[in-house]
Amino acid sequence: MLFARFPGVGEKTAQRFVLHLLSGDGSLAADLGQELAQLRTLLGPCERCGFVAERTDKEPLLCRICSDARRETGTLCVVSKVQDLLAIERSGAMKGRYFVLGKLLSPLEGVGPDALPMDRLMSVIQSTRIAEVILATPPSVEGEATALYISSELAKSGLSISRIASGVPHGGDLEFADQITLGRAILGRRSF
Amino acid sequence: MLFARFPGVGEKTAQRFVLHLLSGDGSLAADLGQELAQLRTLLGPCERCGFVAERTDKEPLLCRICSDARRETGTLCVVSKVQDLLAIERSGAMKGRYFVLGKLLSPLEGVGPDALPMDRLMSVIQSTRIAEVILATPPSVEGEATALYISSELAKSGLSISRIASGVPHGGDLEFADQITLGRAILGRRSF
Repeated sequence: MLFARFPGVGEKTAQRFVLHLLSGDGSLAADLGQELAQLRTLLGPCERCGFVAERTDKEPLLCRICSDARRETGTLCVVSKVQDLLAIERSGAMKGRYFVLGKLLSPLEGVGPDALPMDRLMSVIQSTRIAEVILATPPSVEGEATALYISSELAKSGLSISRIASGVPHGGDLEFADQITLGRAILGRRSF
Repeated sequence: MLFARFPGVGEKTAQRFVLHLLSGDGSLAADLGQELAQLRTLLGPCERCGFVAERTDKEPLLCRICSDARRETGTLCVVSKVQDLLAIERSGAMKGRYFVLGKLLSPLEGVGPDALPMDRLMSVIQSTRIAEVILATPPSVEGEATALYISSELAKSGLSISRIASGVPHGGDLEFADQITLGRAILGRRSF
């Protein structure tokens, strides 16, 4: 029951998946098996940003964002995971390129600064002539710690470093916002 | 069944309240009746900010925030309702005073600029020597429209006018944030 190793899938759901594959005309299992076997042959992580990229004959392996010449150069948005990249991409607010960290600092779980791909980040910044780094790690304890660490590491570089805004979300009610969010909304206020 | 006129209370809950009052030793009904009868004699809206104030012999009727001399003068936080004032107050980020609008612009519901207490706001700003007005209406369509209207009305006054930050809330996951919130988080980014 390898399905049970999927995120959010337990033994029972895995069993339901398998029984579903066993019922019906049987082509689903064969098709899925074929696609899964090819998955890592066809797709791989972009060597520059870490986003998913389609493998071609070309080297290095670049994703559709890194290889898109219409993208604004100069701005690099650092995110924690591919899902966050996709969410920001859907918002349409980011015209530049991304960098996927893959993890966040978490001393409790033993993830220290050494686990962050700082060397690769530095080499991307230098090779693609980045002027502004937007730290878009989540506004959680781990995300803030990671943003702070990266900003201190980049402090000497002379780059413009910014942090995404944290505050009350669109359509949110102040009444039901937590204290830290409201505090940030007040302290992070912007002139009209 | 007057309870059924309460926000969030329907006929069934109102019935449950009444049956609860009828059961037990009966003192709850009498005590509540007495407190409710006195409610509007003891409490009233602060004449300056609109927050709840305890009535005393003194004139004018001022709430505990407006009559607190340790409050920072110069900053006025404009909110839509008393609940929002209490939420911001809990966050501890606001050291100045407040102004409760009581309503938000809503053309669809027929609430136009005339319904906003702009005269009272102006007189509070002038009489209490306000230098900065923080517009803390919610980041909804009505809240944004109201903030925009008030900022345009105050534009000639030479006051510093600011808007609370909107973005991803504390502890929030970028992956699950809506597009408008993510867009605001990116566009409203701040330098480290």
